[in-house]
Amino acid sequence: MNPNPNQPSPTSSAPCPIVPRAVEWAGDALTGRLRLLDQTLLPEREEWLECANVQSVYDSIRRLAVRGAPAIGVAAAYGAVLAGRGRSEDFASALDFLASSRPTAVNLFWALDRMRRVGSTDPETLLAEARAIHAEDERMCMAIGRHGLGLIQPGCGVLTHCNAGALATAGIGTATAPMYLAHQAGVAFKVFSDETRPLLQGSRLTAWELSRAGIDVTILCDSMAAQVMREGRVNLVITGADRIAANGDAANKIGTYGLAVLARFHRIPFYIAAPSSTFDLKLADGGGIPIEQRKIEEIAEQFGRRTAPRGVAAYNPAFDVTPAELITGLITERGMIQPVNEANIRKLLSRPAGETAQP
Amino acid sequence: MNPNPNQPSPTSSAPCPIVPRAVEWAGDALTGRLRLLDQTLLPEREEWLECANVQSVYDSIRRLAVRGAPAIGVAAAYGAVLAGRGRSEDFASALDFLASSRPTAVNLFWALDRMRRVGSTDPETLLAEARAIHAEDERMCMAIGRHGLGLIQPGCGVLTHCNAGALATAGIGTATAPMYLAHQAGVAFKVFSDETRPLLQGSRLTAWELSRAGIDVTILCDSMAAQVMREGRVNLVITGADRIAANGDAANKIGTYGLAVLARFHRIPFYIAAPSSTFDLKLADGGGIPIEQRKIEEIAEQFGRRTAPRGVAAYNPAFDVTPAELITGLITERGMIQPVNEANIRKLLSRPAGETAQP
Repeated sequence: MNPNPNQPSPTSSAPCPIVPRAVEWAGDALTGRLRLLDQTLLPEREEWLECANVQSVYDSIRRLAVRGAPAIGVAAAYGAVLAGRGRSEDFASALDFLASSRPTAVNLFWALDRMRRVGSTDPETLLAEARAIHAEDERMCMAIGRHGLGLIQPGCGVLTHCNAGALATAGIGTATAPMYLAHQAGVAFKVFSDETRPLLQGSRLTAWELSRAGIDVTILCDSMAAQVMREGRVNLVITGADRIAANGDAANKIGTYGLAVLARFHRIPFYIAAPSSTFDLKLADGGGIPIEQRKIEEIAEQFGRRTAPRGVAAYNPAFDVTPAELITGLITERGMIQPVNEANIRKLLSRPAGETAQP
Repeated sequence: MNPNPNQPSPTSSAPCPIVPRAVEWAGDALTGRLRLLDQTLLPEREEWLECANVQSVYDSIRRLAVRGAPAIGVAAAYGAVLAGRGRSEDFASALDFLASSRPTAVNLFWALDRMRRVGSTDPETLLAEARAIHAEDERMCMAIGRHGLGLIQPGCGVLTHCNAGALATAGIGTATAPMYLAHQAGVAFKVFSDETRPLLQGSRLTAWELSRAGIDVTILCDSMAAQVMREGRVNLVITGADRIAANGDAANKIGTYGLAVLARFHRIPFYIAAPSSTFDLKLADGGGIPIEQRKIEEIAEQFGRRTAPRGVAAYNPAFDVTPAELITGLITERGMIQPVNEANIRKLLSRPAGETAQP
């Protein structure tokens, strides 16, 4: 799978100590606590929240202190451990309460269902399951990293958008996973991180986590991506995805589609990194993905100061859909899908997961 | 020149009272004053500065209360009238002082040279020349508007970037001129205004002036332009330009080049509106235009709050160059240049200006 045989390949058990973590459990099942890096304070302050009860986990998810579908799922699983310390007749309602913290987060419901299916409210048993969910997420990220590692050649420039990073998962991220592994393997490369308007996840979060890990990262406004491509400084683009249709059309943070068009114009390969759980094979193509419109204030106000006239309309879609024909490859934990088409997607996803966990 | 003979065509003397003005002279030569709309307070507050001496004109230009090359030139010309009220032996140094307010503004030097060549320090004589410069700028804008008017068809969507509007000129703007004339003529259309990171001239200024005039304007983040094009809601793009090379390559606000690529991909015509003074025929192509890098804080801080980690690099070019082959047409006060190539540019610019002032 690695197109560069001269590049050192980390073993699957290699630790990645350089990567910032967003979610961790400290202590034992009965007295321990969930620790969350408060992402609302980044990049200015690095503070950890200590969650010792269900309410504080709920609050942390709700106010986006922890964000990113996989990271939310892992946090909620640990929240269920805390729920197990209460009266056993309250366990189910505590999990329902956690599930209501972000009503549209699929990973949240999935993780809580798994915790429910443990069939016990014993904190030790629940902690074992939460740790299993956490470990699976870490392995998923590592596998994506290994499948994408060969794309990052010495001296290359990689452009990314939004944050599909360690902060959004319990591991080394999805789009960032190949970058962390390449950096760990001693490959010198440069990352360009779109600031990602309106909420600036690229400059606030991606630039923070990559620079913390010692990766050479440069922020730029979204409108500057075309120019840096034209200057020949971008060799590939890697982003994450929120949902991928059966034909490979991929929904992701607004701006991804435009980047894919610019990459095609400049003949730059464009990759999307996402776990197989992101695929929704019931959707034939991206046309079935509704585009959520968000509130005008995200564009018209900056930190409470008005930057657009009152009464003017704003167009603020949360994401866009990149058609499969603009995507060079899909990097999943089961392997690379390239070229991107329904047959190749179904072939990879129909394999038993274990078969490809160690590529 | 008008491709739509059914569209009402305003006469050259038609007033355009709907358009916000940025620069005006109030009163007579001896006691009057220069009034400037303070653009640093937009869009939140609409306040006029009253400049009754050279120092206040200098300060207003320096702190960007008035901005846009043509508007600065007109403001400086009126500043020279105020200089004429002082001792005649101080006149030349007062003009040098005004010229030092924005060291790279070509229109500023040009306007002050014209005021100097009047050969008099009599305020009446100077006011007549300043009014002439002002009127020429207004006519230039109107002529650009007339040459671009036919592009704006009923029901169409126009996308623009940054502010090449009334606020940047002493008239109805350059990129905005066809929009104002179409609106005045009763054409219903919709404008999409990129917010234009990092300094937000699109949401702060363009959205303000168009909405004030009653034009239907929607702001969007720069990264959303591709999506709104994909939805089929953009029929043409019009931007301004800072400098145009002999072959038609055009430098403009960063983000313009990417928009031109996106427009080409979506088969949407892409126009640049600019006066003939913007052409620099000594430059064979856009490769000779240096790209100014601006300070990191424009991207890494928002209203004093840090939004990127300290120590991270930023890429912040002030503008980019759109190659001629991506430009459908250049709308000048002398007529439309289409297709865009050196022969067509030289042909139009070699005509006496007066010949095409009334197309």
